[in-house]
Amino acid sequence: MAVSYVHCVQPWRVSSKTRLFFSVGGRCREDRWKSNCLVFASAMNSDVSLNLQSKVEVLLDSVKWDDKGLAVAIAQNVDSGAILMQGFANRDALATTISSQKATFYSRSRSTLWTKGETSKNFINIHDIFLDCDRDSIIYLGKPDGPTCHTGSETCYYTSIFDHLKDQEVEGNRLALTTLYSLESTISQRKEELAAPENGKPSWTQRLLLDDNLLCSKIREEADELCRTLEENEDKSRTASEMADVMYHAMVLLTLKNVKTEEVLEVLRQRFSKSGIEEKRSRKALNYEGNLP
Amino acid sequence: MAVSYVHCVQPWRVSSKTRLFFSVGGRCREDRWKSNCLVFASAMNSDVSLNLQSKVEVLLDSVKWDDKGLAVAIAQNVDSGAILMQGFANRDALATTISSQKATFYSRSRSTLWTKGETSKNFINIHDIFLDCDRDSIIYLGKPDGPTCHTGSETCYYTSIFDHLKDQEVEGNRLALTTLYSLESTISQRKEELAAPENGKPSWTQRLLLDDNLLCSKIREEADELCRTLEENEDKSRTASEMADVMYHAMVLLTLKNVKTEEVLEVLRQRFSKSGIEEKRSRKALNYEGNLP
Repeated sequence: MAVSYVHCVQPWRVSSKTRLFFSVGGRCREDRWKSNCLVFASAMNSDVSLNLQSKVEVLLDSVKWDDKGLAVAIAQNVDSGAILMQGFANRDALATTISSQKATFYSRSRSTLWTKGETSKNFINIHDIFLDCDRDSIIYLGKPDGPTCHTGSETCYYTSIFDHLKDQEVEGNRLALTTLYSLESTISQRKEELAAPENGKPSWTQRLLLDDNLLCSKIREEADELCRTLEENEDKSRTASEMADVMYHAMVLLTLKNVKTEEVLEVLRQRFSKSGIEEKRSRKALNYEGNLP
Repeated sequence: MAVSYVHCVQPWRVSSKTRLFFSVGGRCREDRWKSNCLVFASAMNSDVSLNLQSKVEVLLDSVKWDDKGLAVAIAQNVDSGAILMQGFANRDALATTISSQKATFYSRSRSTLWTKGETSKNFINIHDIFLDCDRDSIIYLGKPDGPTCHTGSETCYYTSIFDHLKDQEVEGNRLALTTLYSLESTISQRKEELAAPENGKPSWTQRLLLDDNLLCSKIREEADELCRTLEENEDKSRTASEMADVMYHAMVLLTLKNVKTEEVLEVLRQRFSKSGIEEKRSRKALNYEGNLP
């Protein structure tokens, strides 16, 4: 099915006084922290925009749309890696996503484009878009403004087949969590259990949650042990093991402070997309005059 | 399309002397570290397997297969969160994935089932399977034995639309990396650049890579600063910021030691799925007699 995308490239059909700034790698001054940004600004001729429009058309032509003019589009959280939702995109939807930087799909039931968040305001703000090797599957890598699922769940994937198959009844839903977030969830659960009536002796995580001195001494100790794997030239497996210890104990502290791992990753993204850590360190290190980044 | 799954439940059509052990949460003694495992073992009647077979049938009935009997199936790395590939599953493919614990798809071009890895031996070993809210999209959450893409790439998603749209030529392919792995990639790149002919003064990351004393002093310092956000009751944003510092500097050490972040997450998964960290700590903490986990 041939799908027109005339309206999609309208933002690039700009006047001779308008230039489309396209910057990748977080170099846009307008928004220091975006790793990829399309910035529409005034005051240049239209050569750049025409060039970009042409590139987009070539790119849209290169996608292997199926017999209904669709490709699978998967929205993924740029920080946590969580798969937020999956829909379908046609040529219009992909073009709109590129230009608007809001994840946009084609609704097969309503035969219309829809931008995630147009009703809920929980947009998925695009940082990059990837095609697979066959060019018939798309990842919208983005940051959601809020829960993605219409049920209010953070993602649409909260039904575990293995939970349903096991004999025990499942209490509530369980999101499809990867390792870091499963650990975070487990630590949070231990914290919640502390508020419940006493059920025997506390677990190790709960002991850490209850004793700031113990927790901080462990974090310092594990960081020291991690360093010693380098200083004393220990093998790789020791390094991985000590780093796991550092992360676990530090995540207990995050849980105590009600800081989500995703918030930490957001800080990291904002920094390293601008070489911010390096910048900060270069400022701190008074004797250092190195290049940035 | 009605799809028979008779062959898929064959493993559960066991003799009266065989029992299917179904365990969730890493409690199987046969494989301490699997967070979810189906273990086929001998010596029980078939009640359990019949019950499970019935549950699988109900579950397969509940999926909203499209007019071709298919649903989208997305394979995701349980540790890194990377989207490895996307295919389609029919009833047979999902049933086979449940029973074999190897990600299995339906090839639309060849009209046959195919298990990822049947040729390359790079299977995707399933840890859990999730359905979305509409029950027409599936996540195969698993651990790949090797690169997933037929090109040898770790994942099939290595074509960035934003890279292709920017004016500069793109050097090589860039995987769809979420924040932690983008940072890891950046640090690795800085390390590789050290081997190249001198290009001005080193960046901060490169200084850390070149000076073990500096790196270790920073890791210890940042761990201490993280602890102080708890001890001195600093606000959440300080905690997130200091944790970002800890992670960045620790990841430089990992890069020096050639340890991948994914390896650390694998250690964490193995531990916390068995409450291993808590177990280890309980052994270490001599005065502690707490319950596990």
